[in-house]
Amino acid sequence: MSLCRKALAELLGTAGLLCAVVGSGIMAERLAGGNLAIALLANTLATVFALYVLIEVFDPFSGAHFNPAVSVVMAMRRELPAGTLAVYVIAQLAGAMLGAWLANAMFDLSVLQLSTKARGGWGQWLGEVVATAGLLLVILRAPTGKAAPLVACYIGAAYWFTSSTSFANPAAVFGRMFSDTFAGIAPSSAAGFVFAQMIGAASGALIYRIIR
Amino acid sequence: MSLCRKALAELLGTAGLLCAVVGSGIMAERLAGGNLAIALLANTLATVFALYVLIEVFDPFSGAHFNPAVSVVMAMRRELPAGTLAVYVIAQLAGAMLGAWLANAMFDLSVLQLSTKARGGWGQWLGEVVATAGLLLVILRAPTGKAAPLVACYIGAAYWFTSSTSFANPAAVFGRMFSDTFAGIAPSSAAGFVFAQMIGAASGALIYRIIR
Amino acid sequence: MSLCRKALAELLGTAGLLCAVVGSGIMAERLAGGNLAIALLANTLATVFALYVLIEVFDPFSGAHFNPAVSVVMAMRRELPAGTLAVYVIAQLAGAMLGAWLANAMFDLSVLQLSTKARGGWGQWLGEVVATAGLLLVILRAPTGKAAPLVACYIGAAYWFTSSTSFANPAAVFGRMFSDTFAGIAPSSAAGFVFAQMIGAASGALIYRIIR
Amino acid sequence: MSLCRKALAELLGTAGLLCAVVGSGIMAERLAGGNLAIALLANTLATVFALYVLIEVFDPFSGAHFNPAVSVVMAMRRELPAGTLAVYVIAQLAGAMLGAWLANAMFDLSVLQLSTKARGGWGQWLGEVVATAGLLLVILRAPTGKAAPLVACYIGAAYWFTSSTSFANPAAVFGRMFSDTFAGIAPSSAAGFVFAQMIGAASGALIYRIIR
Repeated sequence: MSLCRKALAELLGTAGLLCAVVGSGIMAERLAGGNLAIALLANTLATVFALYVLIEVFDPFSGAHFNPAVSVVMAMRRELPAGTLAVYVIAQLAGAMLGAWLANAMFDLSVLQLSTKARGGWGQWLGEVVATAGLLLVILRAPTGKAAPLVACYIGAAYWFTSSTSFANPAAVFGRMFSDTFAGIAPSSAAGFVFAQMIGAASGALIYRIIR
Repeated sequence: MSLCRKALAELLGTAGLLCAVVGSGIMAERLAGGNLAIALLANTLATVFALYVLIEVFDPFSGAHFNPAVSVVMAMRRELPAGTLAVYVIAQLAGAMLGAWLANAMFDLSVLQLSTKARGGWGQWLGEVVATAGLLLVILRAPTGKAAPLVACYIGAAYWFTSSTSFANPAAVFGRMFSDTFAGIAPSSAAGFVFAQMIGAASGALIYRIIR
Repeated sequence: MSLCRKALAELLGTAGLLCAVVGSGIMAERLAGGNLAIALLANTLATVFALYVLIEVFDPFSGAHFNPAVSVVMAMRRELPAGTLAVYVIAQLAGAMLGAWLANAMFDLSVLQLSTKARGGWGQWLGEVVATAGLLLVILRAPTGKAAPLVACYIGAAYWFTSSTSFANPAAVFGRMFSDTFAGIAPSSAAGFVFAQMIGAASGALIYRIIR
Repeated sequence: MSLCRKALAELLGTAGLLCAVVGSGIMAERLAGGNLAIALLANTLATVFALYVLIEVFDPFSGAHFNPAVSVVMAMRRELPAGTLAVYVIAQLAGAMLGAWLANAMFDLSVLQLSTKARGGWGQWLGEVVATAGLLLVILRAPTGKAAPLVACYIGAAYWFTSSTSFANPAAVFGRMFSDTFAGIAPSSAAGFVFAQMIGAASGALIYRIIR
């Protein structure tokens, strides 16, 4: 499989993921009548369903990372060539942005916009550390053929049990910056989340090495 | 398997799908006390469960298309004979109408009615393009034996992440015309949705050819 | 496997099913603050989860019918000896009653009570015909090893797309008579539901013979 | 696999479970606007998703008990050495406490706190007997490779059909004591729940012996 096709798979998959996350957030917020638990329930179900489908669809092409933290860990474990890593990350970031733009367009919002929703604080940063550590552990431990349901269900749980609603993915942070809606995050809040995710990814890979 | 039985399977399966979509929409609207997010959550779960079951049940008979856009793409890929295509589409449209009538009857509504719910606009039409393109990509890429859960979960996600709640199926548009309830669509809005679905189906098949 | 153990499996499984249906109905009604769609959503999820588990657990012992309509059809197809049929039905009815009693006891209600909730009318009777016909079709068509998820998901959909919330089971009607709560049915309404279920079961078996 | 690693797996898994149960309870209560059914729905989904993932991830290491009642029954069936039993139980209790602490920390609550939520009474104690008996029956009867979805779905149903919301696990009781939030239980209520769970676990193992 050529690198170009792998990059296209990562771009399409991450675009699909962010389109699902941002789009279902908009729909849920519009319909929920102000009850945020109902909105997050709908956002959760849509994300779980979409993630399961996207991993099954794109796994044979690119491994279905959709997440720079996952790609970096895979490169450090020498399961992804260093040269491929940069291409993957660029494709993921581009895809995330395009996915958010597509969601904006579908819901008749201006395509180009930035989120104003500040997120952060020690609790939420700890939440991102926990969320990303758990995600890496699940990915590294998933039995063959079960990565799609396990990753999807893990994120579905982590939307609720972490205080940050579990972004757990620098590309997700990047894409969510481009929609000033339910799932958005202000650009000024992005660095804290991504830094916490890096610590989390390293922690998850470390815990995996210890228990293996 | 004779063509007659295949047509019967497509008719029964599409009737079951539309009966589930329309019927659960009526029940959800009646019980939800005006909260449309709760109503769409119930409508989503019922559709996902029904679609999974219907595809598993009818796949061995007819391939479980239940959708003219799918049948047309299969015919263009020469996986469905051209003569069979017309029979499939007629069976799907007849089944969709019968399914909506059955839902109307079960809920003590007059069987014969037309929806007055206008749907459309550039955002929703784009939503239908995205929804149908994604559906085709999922169907063409689904690993053997996983089409039922993948298609069901895809539609469950797309109910929320597209602005149109993802009809993604000309037969679904046709059937939903015959119930003036939660899931309905006014006949005058049908052409725009179907046209968008055709563009979406072609786009999905094209993306599949590129990444394959 | 002795007939005695099979009967015990049918009794325990049907008791578990009714305990789940009635108990989750009580919990849902108490917590839902009057929103019946939220109550039915919770009732649906609990029933789907319980049915999936109960069929997987008891299938190797007795076939996991938990439903006289299913047992009668199996006897007519000569997959269940006529002498066993009567034992199965008695075990199912006894289990259904015991399950409702157990739910009443857990929720601090008087164990012995009868429902006063009238149900019926042409729409709901048609709903029971459709629900039971679909259930039989799913059971007869389920591929080996997939009966548990298919039956559970089917009932989850049918709770919403039929006007009667899909009892689809004479033992469920019998057990629900013994709890004057969310899931209950008045004894005076039982005969209409059971009669509709018999017509539905026969219809489902007939449709299966035609399309097979 | 060394005993040390098995203990670590039990500790991490039980920590993950309690973190999911307590954390999603906090998030759900904060967002649900006072509707307890919506809160319990979110708590249920997060628990089901987390339990499924945790059992799949840690099963190859330790058997994924996460529950002293399960470990005791396994020891009595000589599937767990008596010396290992004590280590498992200590790891489970420590993990449960750490998981609750982690949830408290993520949600900016003081880490060290005790629940003040009294639970108990004959109905809820009977609920715990039923919940734990059913759990043991499911675990002992689960076909190879299906324990994770079956246990997760069983608990998801039992959250709703038992009056106690189904703790069914002395380590869960212990961990929930350390968070004065939605999922908490006052220390003074713990003994009654644990005693009921012991009766339930013995009942479940007994029923299994009878029907096997």
